[in-house]
Amino acid sequence: QGILERLDAGEIVIGDGGFVFALEKRGYVKAGPWTPEATVEHPEAGQSVRQLHREFLRAGSNVLQTFTFYASEDKLENRGNYVAEKISCHKVNEAACDIAREVANEGDALVAGGVSQTPSYLSCKDKTEVKAAFQKQLEVFMKKNVDFLIAEYFEHVEEAVWAVEVLKESGKPVAATMCIGPEGDMHGVPPGQCAVQLVKAGASIVGVNCHFDPETSIETVRLMKEGLAAAKLKAHLMCQPLAFHTPDCGKQGFIDLPEFPFGLEPRIATRWDIQKYARKAYDLGIRFIGGCCGFEPYHIRAIAEELAPERGFLPEASEKHGSWGDNLSMHTKPWVRARARKEYWENLKPASGRPYCPCMSKPDGWGVTKGAKELMQQKEATTEEQLKELFRKKK
Amino acid sequence: QGILERLDAGEIVIGDGGFVFALEKRGYVKAGPWTPEATVEHPEAGQSVRQLHREFLRAGSNVLQTFTFYASEDKLENRGNYVAEKISCHKVNEAACDIAREVANEGDALVAGGVSQTPSYLSCKDKTEVKAAFQKQLEVFMKKNVDFLIAEYFEHVEEAVWAVEVLKESGKPVAATMCIGPEGDMHGVPPGQCAVQLVKAGASIVGVNCHFDPETSIETVRLMKEGLAAAKLKAHLMCQPLAFHTPDCGKQGFIDLPEFPFGLEPRIATRWDIQKYARKAYDLGIRFIGGCCGFEPYHIRAIAEELAPERGFLPEASEKHGSWGDNLSMHTKPWVRARARKEYWENLKPASGRPYCPCMSKPDGWGVTKGAKELMQQKEATTEEQLKELFRKKK
Amino acid sequence: QGILERLDAGEIVIGDGGFVFALEKRGYVKAGPWTPEATVEHPEAGQSVRQLHREFLRAGSNVLQTFTFYASEDKLENRGNYVAEKISCHKVNEAACDIAREVANEGDALVAGGVSQTPSYLSCKDKTEVKAAFQKQLEVFMKKNVDFLIAEYFEHVEEAVWAVEVLKESGKPVAATMCIGPEGDMHGVPPGQCAVQLVKAGASIVGVNCHFDPETSIETVRLMKEGLAAAKLKAHLMCQPLAFHTPDCGKQGFIDLPEFPFGLEPRIATRWDIQKYARKAYDLGIRFIGGCCGFEPYHIRAIAEELAPERGFLPEASEKHGSWGDNLSMHTKPWVRARARKEYWENLKPASGRPYCPCMSKPDGWGVTKGAKELMQQKEATTEEQLKELFRKKK
Amino acid sequence: QGILERLDAGEIVIGDGGFVFALEKRGYVKAGPWTPEATVEHPEAGQSVRQLHREFLRAGSNVLQTFTFYASEDKLENRGNYVAEKISCHKVNEAACDIAREVANEGDALVAGGVSQTPSYLSCKDKTEVKAAFQKQLEVFMKKNVDFLIAEYFEHVEEAVWAVEVLKESGKPVAATMCIGPEGDMHGVPPGQCAVQLVKAGASIVGVNCHFDPETSIETVRLMKEGLAAAKLKAHLMCQPLAFHTPDCGKQGFIDLPEFPFGLEPRIATRWDIQKYARKAYDLGIRFIGGCCGFEPYHIRAIAEELAPERGFLPEASEKHGSWGDNLSMHTKPWVRARARKEYWENLKPASGRPYCPCMSKPDGWGVTKGAKELMQQKEATTEEQLKELFRKKK
Repeated sequence: QGILERLDAGEIVIGDGGFVFALEKRGYVKAGPWTPEATVEHPEAGQSVRQLHREFLRAGSNVLQTFTFYASEDKLENRGNYVAEKISCHKVNEAACDIAREVANEGDALVAGGVSQTPSYLSCKDKTEVKAAFQKQLEVFMKKNVDFLIAEYFEHVEEAVWAVEVLKESGKPVAATMCIGPEGDMHGVPPGQCAVQLVKAGASIVGVNCHFDPETSIETVRLMKEGLAAAKLKAHLMCQPLAFHTPDCGKQGFIDLPEFPFGLEPRIATRWDIQKYARKAYDLGIRFIGGCCGFEPYHIRAIAEELAPERGFLPEASEKHGSWGDNLSMHTKPWVRARARKEYWENLKPASGRPYCPCMSKPDGWGVTKGAKELMQQKEATTEEQLKELFRKKK
Repeated sequence: QGILERLDAGEIVIGDGGFVFALEKRGYVKAGPWTPEATVEHPEAGQSVRQLHREFLRAGSNVLQTFTFYASEDKLENRGNYVAEKISCHKVNEAACDIAREVANEGDALVAGGVSQTPSYLSCKDKTEVKAAFQKQLEVFMKKNVDFLIAEYFEHVEEAVWAVEVLKESGKPVAATMCIGPEGDMHGVPPGQCAVQLVKAGASIVGVNCHFDPETSIETVRLMKEGLAAAKLKAHLMCQPLAFHTPDCGKQGFIDLPEFPFGLEPRIATRWDIQKYARKAYDLGIRFIGGCCGFEPYHIRAIAEELAPERGFLPEASEKHGSWGDNLSMHTKPWVRARARKEYWENLKPASGRPYCPCMSKPDGWGVTKGAKELMQQKEATTEEQLKELFRKKK
Repeated sequence: QGILERLDAGEIVIGDGGFVFALEKRGYVKAGPWTPEATVEHPEAGQSVRQLHREFLRAGSNVLQTFTFYASEDKLENRGNYVAEKISCHKVNEAACDIAREVANEGDALVAGGVSQTPSYLSCKDKTEVKAAFQKQLEVFMKKNVDFLIAEYFEHVEEAVWAVEVLKESGKPVAATMCIGPEGDMHGVPPGQCAVQLVKAGASIVGVNCHFDPETSIETVRLMKEGLAAAKLKAHLMCQPLAFHTPDCGKQGFIDLPEFPFGLEPRIATRWDIQKYARKAYDLGIRFIGGCCGFEPYHIRAIAEELAPERGFLPEASEKHGSWGDNLSMHTKPWVRARARKEYWENLKPASGRPYCPCMSKPDGWGVTKGAKELMQQKEATTEEQLKELFRKKK
Repeated sequence: QGILERLDAGEIVIGDGGFVFALEKRGYVKAGPWTPEATVEHPEAGQSVRQLHREFLRAGSNVLQTFTFYASEDKLENRGNYVAEKISCHKVNEAACDIAREVANEGDALVAGGVSQTPSYLSCKDKTEVKAAFQKQLEVFMKKNVDFLIAEYFEHVEEAVWAVEVLKESGKPVAATMCIGPEGDMHGVPPGQCAVQLVKAGASIVGVNCHFDPETSIETVRLMKEGLAAAKLKAHLMCQPLAFHTPDCGKQGFIDLPEFPFGLEPRIATRWDIQKYARKAYDLGIRFIGGCCGFEPYHIRAIAEELAPERGFLPEASEKHGSWGDNLSMHTKPWVRARARKEYWENLKPASGRPYCPCMSKPDGWGVTKGAKELMQQKEATTEEQLKELFRKKK
């Protein structure tokens, strides 16, 4: 059954987790460029991608996204990871499709081909050029016959709409997620309007991914839902947030936190945080629930375990995990055995073990609010013009 | 070259990281029992063990430990994970050896067979019975011809000495590490004396693993070093700590933290924390430097990168990692590019992003001090008798 | 010279600090009711009020407010502190005027008679009744010939306007401050509109007092300033915030913090926080700068010291205080002497010394936002009707 | 009844709070020198001292200490606050006695004359010279006929013993408190031995004051009690700690905290912290319970309220304070009324409201441990010789 059949039938679809962060820690992806050439570099690297897919499948993912994040030709070029003679953009995308399909066939998962924002757009290239980049990736996805398509990680709804328009031509179902928070896209378009534009462009599923923590992301999807309701449009909702706590970040999300990307550890969500997220997402009506950067397989399993009552089954990986810590009842120490219950983990406020560190940080960058109150009070003056100027100056 | 040849020649030997925590998150190990039957359960699980070995090798490990933690027969039985007809203890240990050897041969790594503390000892079985458990595992290690042996994760020096005595009979080099802090073993034997006893029993390499953070663990090894010097004994030093910050834990380490084992995320060490650890360990004269629970491949890479000047080379995984974040110089945002330097990451105090959580926790359990000052002031009254009584009561 | 002559001439006028909190700690005021009957209860209590006035005068206050907070007849009755035969409302107000005048005459200070919000308004009594309460207090202020009048601590602009209208009839200058934050009054009237209404009603000076920390209060005054500018109205600006940090509080301010009123200690502002506040207030154009609850004499001195360059003189209390800690240069320990400089104190991030406590709290109450982001996102639904219903239910 | 009669009869004696910190905030004492010349400078300053005595008396103090801290001639000279022609050391001490007696007579309090450590000792003057300084102050105390004597705030037991010897000659009861923590005096003499030496020198009451928080101070008194028991000596116990939380400070206490003395606000103890302190002190057998720097009148009241069941009465100031917040039951807002109960305040973990600040600090100075674990591990090498050298260098 395809993605839309499942969602239309009221099923909960569990997405997968974050590839670039997980593979960076495993040694196969470079932070900074974050490009996915690993699939074709050497067999061991390809094997690492396959293994991560399998772990997500085992943890409960119903959708395996091809590891094609930032795999547009312009991005690969831009990042110097692409040597025309050696690694073609096509090959990267093809290998990603093959690996995802191989693992998906080991279980009951769909393969989704993904495109994301391009350097072309940010450097103010025109619509035709930007669409061409998406078109190239789409050709691979069509050849490899992925089950559906996801346009994800867009900071500007304009570019996301272009991507949806390209993908839509394929005839396959299209999902579209933006990496925005409740303040909206980088040009100031509020979440509700973003959702409306994406659905009008042809997306059947809309939502957010990356950049913000689960709580903030759910709030953004809530605003999208309200926007769609006001416009009397229908679409399925989707959420794939960070597995990092980011209460202190501004409009542009975790990129601007001083800890990004090499000091985020104290912010990593526990499995219990993710169970709460899954429940909250479900309660809002979101039915495509997954994760992005920071989501490891055990976080995906937490979604599957939280929603097991609704779905009627547990994922395979739960054979190694007692619900709410109940396999601790086998621990040798009585006070650890006493932790084998839901109330314990549900209410635990984990200490940071870092008494010289603060709780909040002051984000860098433009478009950034500075902590709690100021976030609310700040008058964002970032217009499209200012944005373009910024990029012009950089060149 | 064997482990002792390398250490005698003054080489730095990099250990590997933690298997049970990493594989628990990947979905193949159960927290609580923490037993390693995954190797033989089904091919995919074995593949996950192989993959993790590879990642450590790629990150710079010179030693691959067989995934045989808690694989003594009594432990496997005790935990109900062992079904005599289906999975024999021998098979678990054998498969672990085969996988480690296969990956070690892909690079320049040694295979170490490992034994750890047994339920038999804790339930007051006598020396003969306890030694028999180690003997069984040793038989496998000899058959599979591992390069050397490690007795690790012992809370009582008495049992550790028994393990060393058994392993020593094999004629292979023996390393011995205890999971203790500066306060010494659970019977109150100080670290210096533990080291002396282990060396006298035949260990060529001594140190600590698990239970405490890098800083505390180094302090414990320092006390061991002093004990050996006072006794005019020679041995190589070894350190494989947690990758979790534990300034607030007591005598029994992170087990007693309320966050153990499912809420430790905010305590995870950054790669920069680990670089500092590697340098401090090196400066103290430790030459076998690795990690235990919480150490992921990128933490091992951090050791290898910090000590690259001394060793003259970088690990393979560094092709995907600029030293001290320098590949961030390719990031699109100027304020993120500004983070591509050592001073930035060295001095960053990472925020927890958890403003409603405290910084320290009040550990559970016996043998536990309660935070900063009290730790110093507490009179530990835990005698061997009290300990045994505790276990008697539990039965 | 009167208050308006001073402000019109561009002088900085320094207000006084908080009486009820300071005298509660000294033992003369009851938290909860917070009423000022101390002035007439017994001579020692009157002496304590006199002493506190003196300390503020010595610290630099140019205005001494009569200790008549919550001294309206309905409030004193309501709180059971008023026994008609023994202590009349008139006597409380008269004594407060006499004490303030006595101390003001010891220096160069003005006496301001103050009225604040009434139980009558909150219990939905009509305009006539509410105004009658203010009228009674005003009679005393006229008899005692205070220099000017302040309507302060109003949560509803409607009631504040009524107070200004009453006070204005006296012919004396009227200042009006509300205890609101950037979200506006309890009925949702934004700060800018509140300011406009107050000026139109006859206030020559407008601003905020109490309920929020200095930073938030300055932001609220900024919004008032913008509102006045948009309406082309002129008025002097005034700010008398808490000396407590309240980044986590909601619409109703510190009342709703779980720590109110007996656990606020960790939030107390340092003198350096207050110097920063004084500078920021000055830079925004505020010229009547003082404090409210939590402001002790040394906080007022900090305002006077920060603005000494502009004013040309230091307050008397500075004879016991080196600017920016410079009298530490006489300390016996060299590392404490090293703290005798501005850079040190300006940049110090004070530790809480409370490692088991969080940094933020979850406020109680209605109209309350829960921490950083949610504050921004919350849709305040509190209408006048809901508010009245709340008070009806309570009866 | 004298101090010893009261203590011998099993009465609880409540001390007073801190003068120099309270009066610094009120504008009459200079931080750094911390000398008490205020009493004679001008009438208003004397009045401020009188007022503070009264507040402590009203809060429940049974002992009023003369405001003669650091009033030895050498200290006053040393600090440049002493101008021979204008203010003689004698006059400062005499005025302090007169004021204390005047207020003591308003209630049921004893007057204690106090001496503290001298610059003469720290600059290595000999026993005769140091004793002469104490002798001079004693002459005033005898002339003014104080009820008993306190030698307090000594970092070196040697000097404290000299002080006791001098005071003892008067025939009046002598109490002696040192400003040390569990690590002992600056020469490394442990608390137990300090207590023994002080009692042998003639002190009838021994304990600690200043430098450490209540919890640490109680621990130090516990060690003193054990020392006395081991030596079979009898004495009453006394405790007058800081009202600041100092879990992170080292051997020399809060002086070495980076926040000392102008950024300590976040560490101020709540009244509930002090109630816990009073109970703990009582349970250990301490019967002279008071406070030092940071203790305001409401903290003393908290001692008196906590121990009211044992004493059978409340202090006068409790007429303005409901036990455990119960007068909040008169608050207008229902959720604040819900705070009118013991459980609420007993369990509240107050937030700091400072999300960018850490919880612990790294103390400066010598003899300083750096946070939790290191405190325990540090080998203190400070000998008398090192100490003297330090002071030699400074000159």
